[in-house]
This record gives sequence, structure tokens and C-alpha cells, in this order.
Amino acid sequence: MSVLIDGLQYANWSEGIFRQMRAGGVDAVHVTIAYHETFRETVLNIERWNRWFEAHPDLIFQGRTGADVTLAHETGRTAIFFGSQNPSCIEDDIGLVEVLHTLGLRFMQLSYNNQSLLASGCYENDDTGLTRMGRAVVAEMNRVGLVVDMSHSGERSTREAIDQSTRPIAITHANPASWHPALRNKSDDLLRALGEGGGMLGLSAYPHHLLSGSACTLQSWCDMAARAVDLVGPEGVGIGTDLCQDQPDSIVDWMRTGRWTKTVDYGEGSAEAPGFPPMPDWFHDNRDLAGIRGGLLAAGLDRATVDGVMGGNWHAFFNRSFGAQSASPGMQSRAAE
Amino acid sequence: MSVLIDGLQYANWSEGIFRQMRAGGVDAVHVTIAYHETFRETVLNIERWNRWFEAHPDLIFQGRTGADVTLAHETGRTAIFFGSQNPSCIEDDIGLVEVLHTLGLRFMQLSYNNQSLLASGCYENDDTGLTRMGRAVVAEMNRVGLVVDMSHSGERSTREAIDQSTRPIAITHANPASWHPALRNKSDDLLRALGEGGGMLGLSAYPHHLLSGSACTLQSWCDMAARAVDLVGPEGVGIGTDLCQDQPDSIVDWMRTGRWTKTVDYGEGSAEAPGFPPMPDWFHDNRDLAGIRGGLLAAGLDRATVDGVMGGNWHAFFNRSFGAQSASPGMQSRAAE
Repeated sequence: MSVLIDGLQYANWSEGIFRQMRAGGVDAVHVTIAYHETFRETVLNIERWNRWFEAHPDLIFQGRTGADVTLAHETGRTAIFFGSQNPSCIEDDIGLVEVLHTLGLRFMQLSYNNQSLLASGCYENDDTGLTRMGRAVVAEMNRVGLVVDMSHSGERSTREAIDQSTRPIAITHANPASWHPALRNKSDDLLRALGEGGGMLGLSAYPHHLLSGSACTLQSWCDMAARAVDLVGPEGVGIGTDLCQDQPDSIVDWMRTGRWTKTVDYGEGSAEAPGFPPMPDWFHDNRDLAGIRGGLLAAGLDRATVDGVMGGNWHAFFNRSFGAQSASPGMQSRAAE
Repeated sequence: MSVLIDGLQYANWSEGIFRQMRAGGVDAVHVTIAYHETFRETVLNIERWNRWFEAHPDLIFQGRTGADVTLAHETGRTAIFFGSQNPSCIEDDIGLVEVLHTLGLRFMQLSYNNQSLLASGCYENDDTGLTRMGRAVVAEMNRVGLVVDMSHSGERSTREAIDQSTRPIAITHANPASWHPALRNKSDDLLRALGEGGGMLGLSAYPHHLLSGSACTLQSWCDMAARAVDLVGPEGVGIGTDLCQDQPDSIVDWMRTGRWTKTVDYGEGSAEAPGFPPMPDWFHDNRDLAGIRGGLLAAGLDRATVDGVMGGNWHAFFNRSFGAQSASPGMQSRAAE
């Protein structure tokens, strides 16, 4: 069985997009349910997803375990896995790690561009690594099976997360900085360490992470993917498109500034190009993932590696990451549900 | 397999009480996790339980399905099932019904003594039955598998809940008013209707619900149980002791007045006896449940009926009540987890 998994999307969800997922044969997607939200606001977002699950049981359902990817594949649906791009959803309360895991959260970034209570963001001047609470929360995330995601964190914080986490971490959506230098992309050293720790890199198709931006060619991107496989390892690379389909530009403003500033922050953009950048012409929606598979084969990756990058590697990572860390067999099965 | 289940307790929980549960052979308990709490406050209470589950995995674990009662019995532990005595935990937000069910809530009272957003309480002058939101929430509770509990609701509201709920409801802790007239106890007509609808009555050992109060004898209580079996049916009666072990009197003040009044409300008590009443001498803690079994046999109930009242009936009710109402087989198994 060859599965197709996207490791990060934040679309303006609709039945139309769910149907495109089916048309594209997407078995599972890690979706962002919170950027700057408090716990209660995050729960409101979960409630919105519950409405979609109830309305479209033939298209989507909530994914909780790696087995749900198989179930999705076998029943012709897409399993939706929740993640947060910021730890604001746990507020200052470590007990919310387990509560949100029970509600299905499977990835949580320790920071989003800025300093958080847990770690430094990639746009801070000084990256001071994991905070005291950060180290405590990483241990708790390890315990319950909530994956540490360092996509928007700084270099030192990411390194410390790799080192301190007792379970493999993920960078769900970023590319090698050696291909395209951007604060959001990651150094070769970091990517090697990620792979040595059993972690996963999801390759981004978001123009600000791409060489030549929106003009990046599929061939260039797939050559980069081959290089990433060399850096992280053939079992450590997947897709994480960062697709923000059908979103108005007000959403990228919210992503960048939340409630933390009254001024404009362009993040990866600029005053000349403040909104969402146009996607590369080879990736507009979920139906275009098949083209990426073809591009990877054309770039010289063997079929087994391509199957891994397109979903097999995320599937294996989901299988080993979402259950409780150490418990009696009975408890393990409970936690893995 | 004969299981032992208490349908309602609200103790000042401690390792000591968990050990008494084991000494008493209690396989499952429905515990109150909220009286007047908001959603966020209820989640804090869940976090406190998560700490206990983590600290005492050899004694207790969180129960979610009827199968967890069997697991508890087989592994020598007590399964803890969550319930709320008030719908304050869902605030004004019907989406929280599913969210709290996912977090393990299995019972929710539609009101607690007073009028709520959903129904009237048993101490209001006028019982106006289910509200508009009450009818909507009952349908949602039916859908996800959250049991309607009318222990503290008024007669008309309870009757309407029985009639409108498409799944059997519960009165987890009350007795027949024909045995001891109290606003908290239920009329014979209501108990017959409860049983005809497949519902469950949990018999209370709380002195204010007992003939002669704290002086009530075990024989009198067991004769009442036999009468309850006649009213509700042999498969519709269980135990719901309402045990509030080791609680200070400040807790009964909180139960009665929460934040809704600045004056004193004695509830079932009085100015002369404002605190928790002394328990009857035959029921102080979980180790005394065995004595109730003996009393029921002495009262002339046959062994199969006694096994049902002591836990078998709750177990069967748990098995049919906690999963999603109607869904594809795959969804059912998901929801039942």
C-alpha cells in the first residue's frame, strides 16, 4: 500500500477542498487548527472541524493514529490530523498538553516566529533555546504522544528540541536553507541532526521557502528534495506543502501579527508584497500532488524513496509517534486510540 | 462475571480512597467532575484527574466504554467515568457537548436544583420543562453518547427528558419519593416511565434522600430497593450512593450556592444542620458496598437481580449508551473508543 500524506496545510476549508483531496487521492493531512489562539479559542476551532466531520463523513474523518491513515486509504476518505503552529493553545498550563492530545492534537510548534513561553522563534534577534517551561512541556509531549514541531523556531531552539526530546521531532514545513536562504528554512547541520534523531522534514511548497519564489520550477524543487533525502535520510523526508488555499490576505496578517503587535509585520513578505504570494504553477491544490510524485521520479529518486516521501515516511512516523511513551500494554492501547 | 459499579460519588479524592475502592472490589464509579464550573474550570478538574491517573495506574484509569468496566475487573483496578451535575460546563455552546464527550464526559445533568439554560431544577417554584436549547442539547447528547442525567431536575423537566431523548436516560442518584418524600426523590409515575424507556435509577445512600435520614437502617433501604425494582424494572436499578467522602462542609456550600447567590441556601439541609449529614452507619466508604449486597439478598431479591443492581445493570447501560448513536460501523467503533 502506497499512501499519500501532506504534512501541513492551512486552507480555508470547504466541501470543495475536501473533494479535491479525494480527487487527489490524499489519505491524510496534518491541518493547522491554531496560530495564536488561546485554549478556549482552539476548542472553538475544533468544534468547527467537528461540524465538518459530521457533515462530510464520506469525505473526511478525524485521524488520531497511524492506523487511521490505513483506514482512510481503505475507505476512500481523508484522515485529518490536528496541529497547532504555536503553543498559545496550552496557555501557561502543562496539563493542557494531555487534554489537547485527547482532543486529537498531534503536532505542536514550540514557537511561531516570536519568543514563546517555550522556545525562541526564527525571527527573534537572540535565540535562547528552550525555556524552563519548554523543557517541561517537551517531556510531557513525549509522554503523551504529541509531536514537537520546530518549523517556525530558531536554530538553537530547534537543536535543543532535537537533543532534549526523547522521541523524534518534526519540522513539518520547511526546506534546506542551503537551497534557499531564508530564516524559516533550516541549516544542513540541523537537518542532519534531525535525521540522526529519527525525525521528519516536510518539504514546503510555499513560495517564500522556495528558490526563485513563485517562479520556482518543479525540477528545481525535486532536485532540492533529492538533496534533502541525502541530508535527513530516505526515511526522514515527507511533504509539508504549507498550502493556504482560498485564504484571504487578512489571514496571513493574522498569522504574522496575531495580537502581539499593533504595527505591521510583513514576516516573510514585504511592503511591496504583503499578501499571500502566488503559488508555483505546478502546485495549486491537492490534485497537483500527483505531479510532484512524477517530478521526484524524474529527479532520479528510486520508487521506494518516492513512495516514502509522498506518504510512507509520514505514515511510519505517525505510527510510532502518537501513542503514549511508556505504559503497560493496556494503557498503551488506551493512549493510542 | 459479576461487576460492582457505583453510579455516583463525589469524594475528596486521595490515594487512600482509591485503595478503599480496590479493597471494596469496585470495578467502576461515575464521579462528578463539575457542579457549577465553566468549561475551562471543568478542564482544570479533568487535568487534576489526569494527574491521579498518571500517579496511580495500578489503582485507577479513565473509563470511556462499557468494555473498560471489564478491563478494570480483569486487571484489578477501578475505571473512573466522568460526569457533570450541571450543564454549566457546556456554557452556551452546543459544540462543547462533543468536545466534553471526547474528553470522557459520560453523564451530564440538565439542571442542578435551579433553572439552567436547558431545564428546570427540582427546587424552582415553576418547572417549565426543557428549554429550546435543552431540546437541542438532548439531541446532541443522544448523537454523541453523553447520557442525560435528571437527578437534580424537576418532575416535568425529567418527564420531558424521558420523552424527548431518543436514548434511555439516567437518574444516577435518587430514591422513590413514595418511600421518602423529598424534592430530590422521584415520583412512582416518573420512575415507571424511566423504566419503560430503558432508563436507569441509581439508588442513593445520601441521608437527605433516606427515610429517617442518617438513622435509616440497611433493611429499610434494601426494602426500598426491592420496591424500586418493582417500579423501574429489574434491569433498570443500580447503585448511586452520592458518597461525598472526606469532603469539608465548605464543599456542600459550593454545591448548593456556587456563584448564583450571595445569601445562604441550605438546599436539603437547614440552619440547624447546614453541613454534610452523617452517613448511615452501614455505609461510610467503598468497602461497605459488600454489605449492601448482603442486605439486598436478605430483602428477598434473587441473586440475578442483586447482581444487576450491584453493577450488572449499569454495565449493560454503559455498553449501550456511550457510543455514537447512528453511524457507519467504522464511525461507531471510532466514537465508542
